[in-house]
Amino acid sequence: MSKEIELKQVDHRHSREKEQLVNRLKRIEGQVRGIQNMIETDRYCVDILIQVAAINAAMKKVSLQLMENHTKHCVADAIKRGDGEEAISELMDVVERLTKT
Amino acid sequence: MSKEIELKQVDHRHSREKEQLVNRLKRIEGQVRGIQNMIETDRYCVDILIQVAAINAAMKKVSLQLMENHTKHCVADAIKRGDGEEAISELMDVVERLTKT
Amino acid sequence: MSKEIELKQVDHRHSREKEQLVNRLKRIEGQVRGIQNMIETDRYCVDILIQVAAINAAMKKVSLQLMENHTKHCVADAIKRGDGEEAISELMDVVERLTKT
Amino acid sequence: MSKEIELKQVDHRHSREKEQLVNRLKRIEGQVRGIQNMIETDRYCVDILIQVAAINAAMKKVSLQLMENHTKHCVADAIKRGDGEEAISELMDVVERLTKT
Repeated sequence: MSKEIELKQVDHRHSREKEQLVNRLKRIEGQVRGIQNMIETDRYCVDILIQVAAINAAMKKVSLQLMENHTKHCVADAIKRGDGEEAISELMDVVERLTKT
Repeated sequence: MSKEIELKQVDHRHSREKEQLVNRLKRIEGQVRGIQNMIETDRYCVDILIQVAAINAAMKKVSLQLMENHTKHCVADAIKRGDGEEAISELMDVVERLTKT
Repeated sequence: MSKEIELKQVDHRHSREKEQLVNRLKRIEGQVRGIQNMIETDRYCVDILIQVAAINAAMKKVSLQLMENHTKHCVADAIKRGDGEEAISELMDVVERLTKT
Repeated sequence: MSKEIELKQVDHRHSREKEQLVNRLKRIEGQVRGIQNMIETDRYCVDILIQVAAINAAMKKVSLQLMENHTKHCVADAIKRGDGEEAISELMDVVERLTKT
């Protein structure tokens, strides 16, 4: 019998914000495919590495946008409910995780 | 009259190495699509951010592999030819660019 | 006539927390002096770079501790007062600044 | 009987370069002391975090300068001697270590 894992969900993401994030990620997806092509066509390593840095920068923008929205909604709501400690510790774990990579 | 931009190319990448890099990038491509889906299905922000950190870590492995191969071939060859200064400065620019993101 | 710049201050740092942070920073200060000595005594570059990485890691712990306390006090208080937007944007600017270096 | 640990040393650092690196590190040492003072005088967390980011940026300049010199001397010499593989792998380990913090 399969155990249903309950996936935590949110309801604060407006459709416009979702669209913006998904479009950004679609562009990143295209950049990743672009690098595959550069490798397959023996492009100079430094040119490829510059594209890798561009993807990293784009991924950081996505993470900062997600983090800001998370803080403005989930964390702020938890603080208003009086149990902000856990939400803030969770946020700091994410900041640490993202600064390690 | 369109000006042909001469794309710098290398010949040191073995097919096995190319295959390994491209497979890694294909997995990353899949992970980026996975995040799009998490956003569209309103998944909890922290769960998404953990996936973003996983992509950053995978991208770093790709960049370190590219950088090591570049140093072992292009930079080493330039040093043996006696004009390593420029190749080393170029390498350091890439290291700085990758540590900024 | 000198214009007094009003320095923003906080009152949420307990003496034990201050002591812990200052002790950490004193150790980092000692590590920085240690690197000066390694350079003056011509120590191998990689050994020095490993010490630099240790200082970066220690500085990150200080920044995460400061950030967590800031979020639990200044940002949480602003949210409870109803003007969390600005405090959260300021926090995200700091996260971005710290992930750039 | 104490076992003498043989400390690896280099001879490629010119006095001017040493002086420049040590001066940079002395300024960083002063900045670290400055943050201790900001904490002891209850300065606003974000103002302190901005100083932390400035120290991180200064430390990165030191590490890039050390890395460039190391590559131009120790690594280049190893490559010219024909045993560059180990020196390059060691360099990449340092790059990975520095990008993790």
